[in-house]
Amino acid sequence: MHRSTLREITIDCDTDDLEAAASFWSQALGRRKIRSEGPGSENYFQLEASPGDIEINVQRVAHPSRVHVDLETDDVEAEVQRLERLGARRVEQVRHWWVMEAPTGHRFCVVGHSGKQLERDGNVWE
Amino acid sequence: MHRSTLREITIDCDTDDLEAAASFWSQALGRRKIRSEGPGSENYFQLEASPGDIEINVQRVAHPSRVHVDLETDDVEAEVQRLERLGARRVEQVRHWWVMEAPTGHRFCVVGHSGKQLERDGNVWE
Repeated sequence: MHRSTLREITIDCDTDDLEAAASFWSQALGRRKIRSEGPGSENYFQLEASPGDIEINVQRVAHPSRVHVDLETDDVEAEVQRLERLGARRVEQVRHWWVMEAPTGHRFCVVGHSGKQLERDGNVWE
Repeated sequence: MHRSTLREITIDCDTDDLEAAASFWSQALGRRKIRSEGPGSENYFQLEASPGDIEINVQRVAHPSRVHVDLETDDVEAEVQRLERLGARRVEQVRHWWVMEAPTGHRFCVVGHSGKQLERDGNVWE
């Protein structure tokens, strides 16, 4: 048994000016931008979320700009295998997450996490 | 004064089999798929949302597959003008909404709506 949920969306920006990109989305969506911390943080801003709001990241990328969804799970391997059975495929493992491609062609991520919020609002998969 | 908020994301699918596309995302995200009603409904499924969840649409499109965000507002023209001042541009008007392009290159929509939920959780713009 494991859990997963749609926790966040990431706005991938092929840009030399991540701060300007994050500023646009911050003002457009009415959410304060917060510089991320930790490994790779120079490529991320988070947009502030109220409790229950979907989280939004603005990320600098080296591929064409797009928006992708991030699934949060307490068991990355089990969730990736569940999604493979639905027709998705593994693209690349990055630190503690997997980049996958849906049968519809969309790239998305499966990110490992555990915590009370996932226990409360995650879908439970056998 | 007008209001806006991020109400939904739309998974645009360049596909001949919208039902299969919606089924994948329904199962991946753990949300029941619901056939939309009204004009253009043959091109849409909604994924069921609990109160407070971001809404998700799966849409058949005739352009490359992508994910886009939809801003909901009680004054489309005022919101479009606010976003233009932030650097976005108008692309196309479709029924009661505008397709816009962010300075980061992402297409997104500004959709007209009014109601108690927007009064409760919308950002207020002067």
